[in-house]
Amino acid sequence: MNVMNKIAAPIGLTVLPQPYLLFLGDTVEPGYAKTAFGLRDWAPEKCLGEFACGATVTTGLPQMTPAEAVARGARALVIGVANGGGVIPQSWLPSLIDALEQGLDIVAGMHARLRDFPELVAVAQRHGRQLIDIRTPPASLPIGTGRKRSGKRLLTVGTDCALGKKYTALALARAFQARGIDADFRATGQTGIMIAGSGLPMDAIVSDFEAGAAEILSPDADPAHWDVIEGQGSLMHPAYAAVSLGLLHGSQPDVVVVCHEPGRTDVLGAPGYVVPTVEEIIELTLMLGRRTNPAIRCGGIAYNSVSLGEAEAAELMARDSARFGLPVADPMRGGAAFDRLVESCLA
Amino acid sequence: MNVMNKIAAPIGLTVLPQPYLLFLGDTVEPGYAKTAFGLRDWAPEKCLGEFACGATVTTGLPQMTPAEAVARGARALVIGVANGGGVIPQSWLPSLIDALEQGLDIVAGMHARLRDFPELVAVAQRHGRQLIDIRTPPASLPIGTGRKRSGKRLLTVGTDCALGKKYTALALARAFQARGIDADFRATGQTGIMIAGSGLPMDAIVSDFEAGAAEILSPDADPAHWDVIEGQGSLMHPAYAAVSLGLLHGSQPDVVVVCHEPGRTDVLGAPGYVVPTVEEIIELTLMLGRRTNPAIRCGGIAYNSVSLGEAEAAELMARDSARFGLPVADPMRGGAAFDRLVESCLA
Repeated sequence: MNVMNKIAAPIGLTVLPQPYLLFLGDTVEPGYAKTAFGLRDWAPEKCLGEFACGATVTTGLPQMTPAEAVARGARALVIGVANGGGVIPQSWLPSLIDALEQGLDIVAGMHARLRDFPELVAVAQRHGRQLIDIRTPPASLPIGTGRKRSGKRLLTVGTDCALGKKYTALALARAFQARGIDADFRATGQTGIMIAGSGLPMDAIVSDFEAGAAEILSPDADPAHWDVIEGQGSLMHPAYAAVSLGLLHGSQPDVVVVCHEPGRTDVLGAPGYVVPTVEEIIELTLMLGRRTNPAIRCGGIAYNSVSLGEAEAAELMARDSARFGLPVADPMRGGAAFDRLVESCLA
Repeated sequence: MNVMNKIAAPIGLTVLPQPYLLFLGDTVEPGYAKTAFGLRDWAPEKCLGEFACGATVTTGLPQMTPAEAVARGARALVIGVANGGGVIPQSWLPSLIDALEQGLDIVAGMHARLRDFPELVAVAQRHGRQLIDIRTPPASLPIGTGRKRSGKRLLTVGTDCALGKKYTALALARAFQARGIDADFRATGQTGIMIAGSGLPMDAIVSDFEAGAAEILSPDADPAHWDVIEGQGSLMHPAYAAVSLGLLHGSQPDVVVVCHEPGRTDVLGAPGYVVPTVEEIIELTLMLGRRTNPAIRCGGIAYNSVSLGEAEAAELMARDSARFGLPVADPMRGGAAFDRLVESCLA
């Protein structure tokens, strides 16, 4: 069973044409192809193959041209790489134009916007194709109301940015579904939106509409249904807390899972700021989250333990689980600890 | 001494041409002319006169045509009214075109944007004039860094929206200056920006840049200088808390003043949400604000007591001041209670 097959996109969200042909450009640095790797790992049924113009990096998926991909049913070319500046180099344009001419829409989540390339706009118009910039949110978003919605919601939150909130939400949604529970992963960042096929880029939304956007991201649902929502930023990040609080209020989660990277000392991009403790984030999240859901609780903690050996990670998580009185697990490692986290969230 | 003469606009902010001719359109409802009244009351030296096309409402300022205003030195026509839908009716266009042709820029803070009227754009281009939509933030805003800046800062915060955060900040800035203190009012909403002549529309900024925008709004300053910053929304408003938290983090205030309207029971625009207590907002604001300024403190409470009689208001504020252990004053009433609030903020 795959987490992605279940997605039904609520009205007002960015929705992507599928399946995809993954574009790797001229990428030689694997770190820049994280988006393509994420799509391969988390949405394999959406990815027919890969296409490049000089890349040495590969996802291992079949290599094919846009024409071949269209013949197999592809509907969009997804730019699966993010280079340093988030730019679209001129050397990619012939490949992108080929894709449009063969009948594919183009999806990008980079800082550079497809629509700012007149050559692409002209070809897309001529062939009736879409240029979809995921970082550009829908035009009409509502102001939040705070109205209680039906169904259940889980939100991943973090002690910092970039430590596993998206992967934790994906892993939990998949685990819920594996237990026969009706669950959707709700994406809030560009890679998540490509994986899910829909979502809202919460960090690109005007702040007055932040909570309102989060409200439409997880609409009314069956009482037994779970939305598992990808968190953003951190309530204690000096740059991004506005995103985190709007998402928390609008998501009105029943359960939060705190994501943390043991050993990380300094907040990303904010020199001199110490990463808060898990306890601080639990306390703050529950205090603020009660405003829109008085029943909010912490289901457990997800550690990103990639820098630790297996035994060391297991020992740390067992010790911290006893200390917090809550399950601690690394979703990437799975195992019994992760099962306990899943059960705690569903309890 | 007037609060406005002191303003020096930091780089990156919206800056308005001055002085103004106030435009009242065809307004017959005084409530819709609040912007014009605010400008008359708080920036009289910026307002040369008023101009209308059928209005029965008046600010009491001299009535003059755009040509007459230009002859007296006016540089911008400011739309001083906000009707129900925030629209610019067709019936205003001849007056607006006259203003452009006579040499005035046009400033608007409504939902409707001047630039969406091709007639206005064409005339403005022909005459080299600006159409300034205050709700549209500058294009390049930085991500927040959390870096400690020099100088002192005060931020007004609230238990809800629309209960006096702007007027409290204006009154405090004016009182600081009257005591010989070097102080600037920093505007974060459209009326405040018109009054100050510069600022940033914090509710219109993309949430990822919210704290960064607040950082450039109150830049490094002389250690004895005070920025008095207009607050927005409320940390406990289910729609707008993202705006409030980004502004709090980026402002890194040394002092906050909590604004409250006694007797208001329900949060504006959020049925079923009870207005939080002053104590709740003090606790939450200090807890969250410590992240970017560990020395943050509450200087006191500003009541909007417009619905109470003078004796009743005085009695309530004296009683609540004893209860909170902090000065409580209505900036619109002034008096000894307000002096105590000012002294507490400066202590």
